[in-house]
Amino acid sequence: MSSLTPIPGGVCAPKGFKAAGICCGIRSNKTKNDLSLIVSDVPCSAAAVYTQNKVKGAPITVTKKNIADGKAQAVVCNSGNANTCNADGIEIAEKMCRIAAEATGLKAEDFVIGSTGVIGQPLPIQPIADGMPKLAAALSYEGSDSAAWGIMTTDTVKKEYGVSFTVGGKTCSMGAIAKGSGMIHPNMATMLAFITTDAAISPAMLQKALSEDIVDTFNMVSVDGDTSTNDTVAILANGMAGNEEITGTGADYDAFAEALHYITVSLSRGIAGDGEGATKLLECRVTGAPDKQTARIVAKSVITSSLFKAAMFGEDANWGRVLCAIGYAPADFDINKVAVSLSSEKGEIAVCKDGSGVEFSEEKAAEVLSAKEIIISVTLGEGTGEAVAWGCDLTYDYVKINGDYRT
Amino acid sequence: MSSLTPIPGGVCAPKGFKAAGICCGIRSNKTKNDLSLIVSDVPCSAAAVYTQNKVKGAPITVTKKNIADGKAQAVVCNSGNANTCNADGIEIAEKMCRIAAEATGLKAEDFVIGSTGVIGQPLPIQPIADGMPKLAAALSYEGSDSAAWGIMTTDTVKKEYGVSFTVGGKTCSMGAIAKGSGMIHPNMATMLAFITTDAAISPAMLQKALSEDIVDTFNMVSVDGDTSTNDTVAILANGMAGNEEITGTGADYDAFAEALHYITVSLSRGIAGDGEGATKLLECRVTGAPDKQTARIVAKSVITSSLFKAAMFGEDANWGRVLCAIGYAPADFDINKVAVSLSSEKGEIAVCKDGSGVEFSEEKAAEVLSAKEIIISVTLGEGTGEAVAWGCDLTYDYVKINGDYRT
Repeated sequence: MSSLTPIPGGVCAPKGFKAAGICCGIRSNKTKNDLSLIVSDVPCSAAAVYTQNKVKGAPITVTKKNIADGKAQAVVCNSGNANTCNADGIEIAEKMCRIAAEATGLKAEDFVIGSTGVIGQPLPIQPIADGMPKLAAALSYEGSDSAAWGIMTTDTVKKEYGVSFTVGGKTCSMGAIAKGSGMIHPNMATMLAFITTDAAISPAMLQKALSEDIVDTFNMVSVDGDTSTNDTVAILANGMAGNEEITGTGADYDAFAEALHYITVSLSRGIAGDGEGATKLLECRVTGAPDKQTARIVAKSVITSSLFKAAMFGEDANWGRVLCAIGYAPADFDINKVAVSLSSEKGEIAVCKDGSGVEFSEEKAAEVLSAKEIIISVTLGEGTGEAVAWGCDLTYDYVKINGDYRT
Repeated sequence: MSSLTPIPGGVCAPKGFKAAGICCGIRSNKTKNDLSLIVSDVPCSAAAVYTQNKVKGAPITVTKKNIADGKAQAVVCNSGNANTCNADGIEIAEKMCRIAAEATGLKAEDFVIGSTGVIGQPLPIQPIADGMPKLAAALSYEGSDSAAWGIMTTDTVKKEYGVSFTVGGKTCSMGAIAKGSGMIHPNMATMLAFITTDAAISPAMLQKALSEDIVDTFNMVSVDGDTSTNDTVAILANGMAGNEEITGTGADYDAFAEALHYITVSLSRGIAGDGEGATKLLECRVTGAPDKQTARIVAKSVITSSLFKAAMFGEDANWGRVLCAIGYAPADFDINKVAVSLSSEKGEIAVCKDGSGVEFSEEKAAEVLSAKEIIISVTLGEGTGEAVAWGCDLTYDYVKINGDYRT
C-alpha cells in the first residue's frame, strides 16, 4: 500500500529548506514577485533535465556546469526575462549566481539557476543585485508561497505541491513549485520546476528517478506545441529525513520514485490546466495500444490539436477532430478499431466505435463538457500499451495574451 | 524565358472544361453553394495525391478506385459534410458518383469525388440526388466561379487561379479551384484542390509532376497543424490544346511542371492567407540550410508555431519565438549561425544575427508588421538548401470559428 500523503508547505515542506520571493523590478509590472531563492541548510544531491530545443537559455548552460558534480545547495530564479539569445547571457547568469552566493554565504557553483520571460532582451543585473540582500534576508522555512509567485509569468494560479512518503521506515517529504502557462510542449523537461526533498539519495539515483519519470509526466504536457528554450526541472535532495541513502534500485528507490511521480503528475496537471488563457484541463487517456510509445504518441497528438482544443473551449463534442488527431499521429495501428468517449464529473458519452461515429445525446454531451476537467478516453483495441497526456483548451485569451506579450 | 501568363476563368480556363455549383441544401446555411461539378468534353489523364492521415474520407477511397486506370472525365464535390467516419460512407460516395453520372451522361467511374465539412455525421444523399439534374443543367464553360464557391466551407475568399503556358509551340492552359481554411497542415496533399488543363500528358507523367510538386507547395502550408482526413489534390488533363502528348521528361515536361508549380504556389498562398480567422499571410523563406529537407523542416516549424502566429496577429516583432521554433525543429544545424529578418512591402528589419538579438527600431518594426503579407527570412549560414513555407496568424476568430463549428 502506498504511504503517500499530500502535505502543505511546497518546497519548504521537506526539512531544512528555506525559500523566499520578492519583487526586485525586472518586469514592467512592479507589483509581482520576480526573483526567488530556495536554500537548503546542508549540501544536496542534485539532478536536472533540460529542454531539447537547440536554443538554450544561458541559465541552462550555467546550471549544467554547476551541478556536474551531482551537488547543489540552492536555487535562484527570476521571471520577466528568459536571459536567452543574449550575447552576454552566460556572463549575466554567472554574475547572478555570484550575487546570490554572496547574499547567502554559499558558493556560486552551489546554485541551480533559472530565468523565464521574454527571449532576446538583455537581462538587467542591477535590480537583481539591488534586491538580493533583501531576498536573502526574507528566506524562511515558510517561504514557498512567495518563491512560487516569484517564478510565475503569465500563470494565473500558483503551482505548489507537497507529499510525504516513507523510505526504510523514515518519513520523508517532497515539495515543488513550477511555472508553466505558455511555450509549453516539453521535450525532456518543461518550463521551470524546482523540487525539494529531505530524502537521502545519491546524485546518480536522483538523476535516474527524474529522467525516467518525466517521460510520462512533463513530456506528456502541451499547452501550445511550442517547446521552450528554458525548460528545466531540477531536484535537490538534502538527506535531512535521516533515511539510509538510496544508492541503488529496490523498495526504497521505488518509494522515492512513487513520491516523485505524485509530485510531477501534480505539476503536469497544474501546468496544463493553467495553460495560457485556458478554461479547461484536458486529460487524454489512451489504452489498448500495441505498445506504450504508441499510446504516448496518440495521447499527445489529441491534446495538441488546435482544432480539438478550440472545440473544447466551445464545449462542442466535435469528436471527429479527436479521430483526425489520432489519425495523423505518427504511429502504427488500425484506425478501424478505435473507440472514443468523453467524460467528466458530470457523466460520460461514447462518441465513436470501430472508427465510426455512434449516436449520442447532444444535451448529455453539453452537460459533460460543461465541466472544468474533461477526460478523453481512447481505446485502440490492439494491446496493453497505456499513456496519459495533459493539455488545455484554446481560447480567445491565449490569442490575447500572446498577441502582445512583449509590449 | 518563362511563357507563363496568368489568365482568368479558373477550372474553365483550359479548353473543353465546363463547371457549375449550386446550393442543394446539405448545409444548415441554405444560401451558400454546396455542390459542384467539373466536366471535361473528352476523357482525361488523371492524377491525384491524398492525405496521409490514417482516417481517410470515403471519397478518397472511391476516387482512388475510379482513377486507378489513370483516367477520369469529371469531378463532383460537396461541402458541408466530409463523409468521413461514417459506416455507410463508401456506399454514399459511390451513390453520389452514380447520380452525377446519370445527370451528365458519363459513367460513375469517370468521376473524381470530394467531400468537405464536418466529420462523422452521415451525409444525406437526398439533397444531392434532388439537386444534381439542376446542377448538370447549369454546367457552362464560364462556370468556374460558382463551382469554386460550392466547395468552400469556412473559407472567406474564393481560391481560383489560371495560367497559360507553351508546350511544343502549342498554347496550353491550366486552371484550378481549392478550398482551405481549417484543418490545414497537409502531409502529401492538402484539402481539396481541383486542377484542370488542356495539355496532353500521359497519366504517369501527370502523377509524377503532381507528386513531385506538392512537396514544396501544398506540403509547405499550415494553418493549424491539423492534417485533415479528406485532403485531395486532383488534376485532369484533357489534351484539347493539341500539343504532342507528354510521355517522358524533357522541355515539354518542364514547361508543364513550371505551369503546375505556378498554380500550386498560388493555391498554397491563397489557402494560407485565408486560413481560418487569418488577417495575415506569413511566408517563411529559409536559405543557407545544409540541405533542402532541413530548410523545409525549419520553414514549416516557424509558420506552425502558435506563439509566433499570435505575435504576428498582434503585430509584435517577438523574434525570440521565431528562434524558439527554429530551435525545436527536428533537424541538425548550428543555432549560433542563424540570422532572422522580418519584411513586408513596408520595409525590412534585421532582428537576429549569430543566434542573438540585434537592436532594431520598434517603430520601424510596427510599420513593417502592419502589412497583410509578412516575410520571415531565416538564414542558417551552413549551405545552399532553400525552402519556403506559408501560414497565417492566429486570431480570436480562429478560436471563435472552431469553438462552435458544428453547432
